[in-house]
Amino acid sequence: MYETIGYDIDARVLTITLNRPERLNAFTTTMCEELIHAFDCADADDDVAAIIVTGAGRAFCAGADLSAGSATFDYANRPDRQNGEGSPVRADGSVDYAHPSIRDNGGRVSMRIYQSLKPVIGVINGPAIGIGVTMTLPMDVRIAADTARFGFVFSRRGIVPEAASSWFLPRVVGISRALEWCTSGRIFSAEEAKEGGLIRSIHPAEDLLGIGQAMAREIADNAAPVSVALTRQMMWRGLSQATPMEAHRLDSKLIYARGRAADAKEGVTAFLEKRPPHYPNTVGNDMPEPYPWWEEQSFTA
Amino acid sequence: MYETIGYDIDARVLTITLNRPERLNAFTTTMCEELIHAFDCADADDDVAAIIVTGAGRAFCAGADLSAGSATFDYANRPDRQNGEGSPVRADGSVDYAHPSIRDNGGRVSMRIYQSLKPVIGVINGPAIGIGVTMTLPMDVRIAADTARFGFVFSRRGIVPEAASSWFLPRVVGISRALEWCTSGRIFSAEEAKEGGLIRSIHPAEDLLGIGQAMAREIADNAAPVSVALTRQMMWRGLSQATPMEAHRLDSKLIYARGRAADAKEGVTAFLEKRPPHYPNTVGNDMPEPYPWWEEQSFTA
Amino acid sequence: MYETIGYDIDARVLTITLNRPERLNAFTTTMCEELIHAFDCADADDDVAAIIVTGAGRAFCAGADLSAGSATFDYANRPDRQNGEGSPVRADGSVDYAHPSIRDNGGRVSMRIYQSLKPVIGVINGPAIGIGVTMTLPMDVRIAADTARFGFVFSRRGIVPEAASSWFLPRVVGISRALEWCTSGRIFSAEEAKEGGLIRSIHPAEDLLGIGQAMAREIADNAAPVSVALTRQMMWRGLSQATPMEAHRLDSKLIYARGRAADAKEGVTAFLEKRPPHYPNTVGNDMPEPYPWWEEQSFTA
Repeated sequence: MYETIGYDIDARVLTITLNRPERLNAFTTTMCEELIHAFDCADADDDVAAIIVTGAGRAFCAGADLSAGSATFDYANRPDRQNGEGSPVRADGSVDYAHPSIRDNGGRVSMRIYQSLKPVIGVINGPAIGIGVTMTLPMDVRIAADTARFGFVFSRRGIVPEAASSWFLPRVVGISRALEWCTSGRIFSAEEAKEGGLIRSIHPAEDLLGIGQAMAREIADNAAPVSVALTRQMMWRGLSQATPMEAHRLDSKLIYARGRAADAKEGVTAFLEKRPPHYPNTVGNDMPEPYPWWEEQSFTA
Repeated sequence: MYETIGYDIDARVLTITLNRPERLNAFTTTMCEELIHAFDCADADDDVAAIIVTGAGRAFCAGADLSAGSATFDYANRPDRQNGEGSPVRADGSVDYAHPSIRDNGGRVSMRIYQSLKPVIGVINGPAIGIGVTMTLPMDVRIAADTARFGFVFSRRGIVPEAASSWFLPRVVGISRALEWCTSGRIFSAEEAKEGGLIRSIHPAEDLLGIGQAMAREIADNAAPVSVALTRQMMWRGLSQATPMEAHRLDSKLIYARGRAADAKEGVTAFLEKRPPHYPNTVGNDMPEPYPWWEEQSFTA
Repeated sequence: MYETIGYDIDARVLTITLNRPERLNAFTTTMCEELIHAFDCADADDDVAAIIVTGAGRAFCAGADLSAGSATFDYANRPDRQNGEGSPVRADGSVDYAHPSIRDNGGRVSMRIYQSLKPVIGVINGPAIGIGVTMTLPMDVRIAADTARFGFVFSRRGIVPEAASSWFLPRVVGISRALEWCTSGRIFSAEEAKEGGLIRSIHPAEDLLGIGQAMAREIADNAAPVSVALTRQMMWRGLSQATPMEAHRLDSKLIYARGRAADAKEGVTAFLEKRPPHYPNTVGNDMPEPYPWWEEQSFTA
C-alpha cells in the first residue's frame, strides 16, 4: 500500500514502520506524504487504539536523504520540492517566504503527529538523527534500544533545527539540554538521551518492540478511546494555555460532558466490579462538545 | 471545626489533614469547600508561615468518592452538585456550559492552592489517585512514603483529567510523562513518580511527616514571609509571562520596593551578624506595590 | 581592559572571568556594565565562536556585594545606583516605578546573556549565590565543581528573586524545584543542583575548566556559526511561541534561506567526505532573513 512505510494493525495496535532499510530509513518527500496519510487513516479508524512508530532494519531514521548531495537543502534547485506550485524564488532572485512550497516537510509530519487523536509510542530501534529524532518529539513516549544514537545535527550541516523542534524540544527536555544538543550538533548515546529526558527508558534491542507493544496494549485494553483522544489534546494544547484558569474552564466542561456519557458509567462500574471495561463510545461518533476547543492555525495564516 | 479535614497550627506550621480515613480520604464536595476555606484562613493568618497537606490513616486520597456508583460523574443526576443554582441541563436536553454549577470541584481546590500566599508541602503518605494526585500539583513540593501509589486514572473511568491538571501536570513533570501517565491511566509506584519528577523524594512512611515538618520549619525560621509570598506568586505567574522582559520589569519593581523595606535591612544585617533574622514585615500589612500585579481571572469570564 | 572581569580569546573560545577574587567575585554595578560590554564585544567579533563564563579564585560569584551593609538593596540611599538619572522617589515619598533607575542590574546582565548570538557555557568553579546563580540561568549549559554551592537566598535577605529568574528558573529546572529553592532560600550542594537539573554535570575542581573548554571547542570546531546563532535564538524565543505552528512557519523560512547558503553546501559536503567543515558564512555578514524575527522589548515599554 505504501512505498516507504509499513502500516499494520494487530488487535487495535497500529505499527507504522519506517521502511527504507537499505537507506537507514532516510526521510524523503514520499515518506513525508505517506506518514501524514497514515496518521489520517489511524485517526479515522476506530479499530486503532494506539500507535507504534519504529524503523525497519538496524536504524530508526538516519535523517534527511542526502542523495542530492550538496543541493539537499537548496530547495530552489530540487524539482521534487516544487510541489507543482512553482518556485518561491522571484525573477529578481529574492524569495517569497509566503510561498507554500517553502514549507518544511519535517514540520508537516511533526504537526500531524501533534494533532493525532491516538497515543503514539516511539520505538527507537537504532540511530535517530536529524528529522529522525525531531519527528519523534510530538510522540507521547519514546523508548530506545541500547544501540540507539541521537543527533540534532543541523548546526553541523549549516542549517537550523526543523520540524517545529524549537517549540517541541525545549518543552520535552528543557531549554538547557535543547541548547546543548542543538548548538553542538553532536551525536550522543541512549544513556545521555535518557538522562536528558529525551527517552523514557532503554532496552536490549531484541526486547524493544515487545515493550512498546505492551505499552500500547495497556492503553488499548484499559482506557476509553474518547477519553484518550481528549486527554492527548488537552495536554498538548494545555502547553499553549496562558493560565490554569483556562484549563479549569475547559476541563469543567469536558468532565461534565463525559460524566454523563455511557463510557463514564461503564468505567466506574467496571472498576467497582473489578472487571475489564467495555467502552461503548467511539472517537468516530462520540467526541463531545466543546471538542475541538481550539482553532487549528494554517501554515500561511 | 471541619468535618472532613484537620487544621492544626504548631509553631507557625499549619498541617491540613485529609480526614476521612474510613473512606481512604475520598474527595467530596464538603472536602472541597473545607479545603478552600482552610487555605483562605491560612492566607489571612500571619501566624501561618508554611503549610503541610497530608492524609489520615494509610491513604493520602483515593480519589473522588465513588459511593454514587455509576452516577458519580453524572452531575445532572446528583442533587449534591446543584449548589442551589439549578441544573445546567435545559428543557431540550442541551447543556448550558456557561452555567456555574458546571464547575469542577477539583479545579476549585487546585486553583485555590495555586493562589496561596504560603508555601505548601504535599506529604503523600499513601495512595494518591485521581483528584488525590491532581490536587497536589499546585503545591510547591511533594514528598512521598515508599508505600505511596499514584494514578491519573481518568481515562480508565471514561472521563478526562481535571483540576486544571492539563495546565499543571505538563509544567510539573514535562509533557511526555504527562501524556504517558494520563493516556494509560495506570497506577504507578513512588519510584516511578520520583523518576518522572512528580515527587521530590521518597521516605520510609514512619519518617515522612517529620521530614515534611522540617522542610516547613526551614522556611518558617529563615525566610521573610512577605518575600516568600511574593516569590511564590512570581514563580507561578512567571509561567504565564510570554517573555523574560516581563519578569525583568516586575522584579525590578519588587526588588526596589522590598529593598527599602525593614525586612531587607534585617535580612542583610542578620546574615552579616550570623544570627537568626527577625523580620518585622507581615503578609497582612506589608505586601508592596505592585502586588498583586496580575488580574485574577474569573471562571465565567 | 576591564576592572572586574577578564576577557580572553583563545582559538575562537572566549573566556570571561569574574575577577574580584578577594571579594569572592561579588557582583557590583561595575561588573554589571563590564559583563554587558563583554557580551556586546563577543557578538560583534566573528573570531568568537563560543563563550565560557567562570570565576577567579575559589568562588564563582558570592552574590551582590554587601559592603553597603543594611543599605545594600535600599537603592534610593545608594548614590552609585542613581545612574545620573535622579531618584525615582518623589518629593512626597512615593516611588515612580517607571523611572529607569529602578532597573535591576542583575536583570540587565541576564537579559544580555539571553540575547547572545554565541553559545555560553557556565563553568561554576565554586559558590554561586544570589545573582551568582541567577546570572547563569540564561547560559546554555552549566557545569560545576564538586565544591560548588548554590543558593537562591533572596527570601533570607528580605527581598525577592531577581535577574528575571522568575521567568528563567521554572523553565530551566521546573516549577517545583524553583519554588522549593526560592521560598526556602537555603544553600544546597552540587549534587542537589544536578539532581534538580540546574547543572549538567559535576567534575573535580581541577578538571572543570578543561571540560568546559572541550565543550566550547566541540562547537567551535564543528558547528556553523550562523547556524549556532540562529539556533540559540530559535530555542530561547521558541519558549515564547504560543503554538508549534509558529515554530513551523519560522523554521520553514530559515531552512529555506540557510539551505541555499554556502554553509549548507559545505556542511553536507564535508559530512559526506568525512572531513572537517570550513564554513564560509559569518554572523557579522550572513544572518539571513527573517532574522531577527522578534521585536526586542524595551524595559520601559
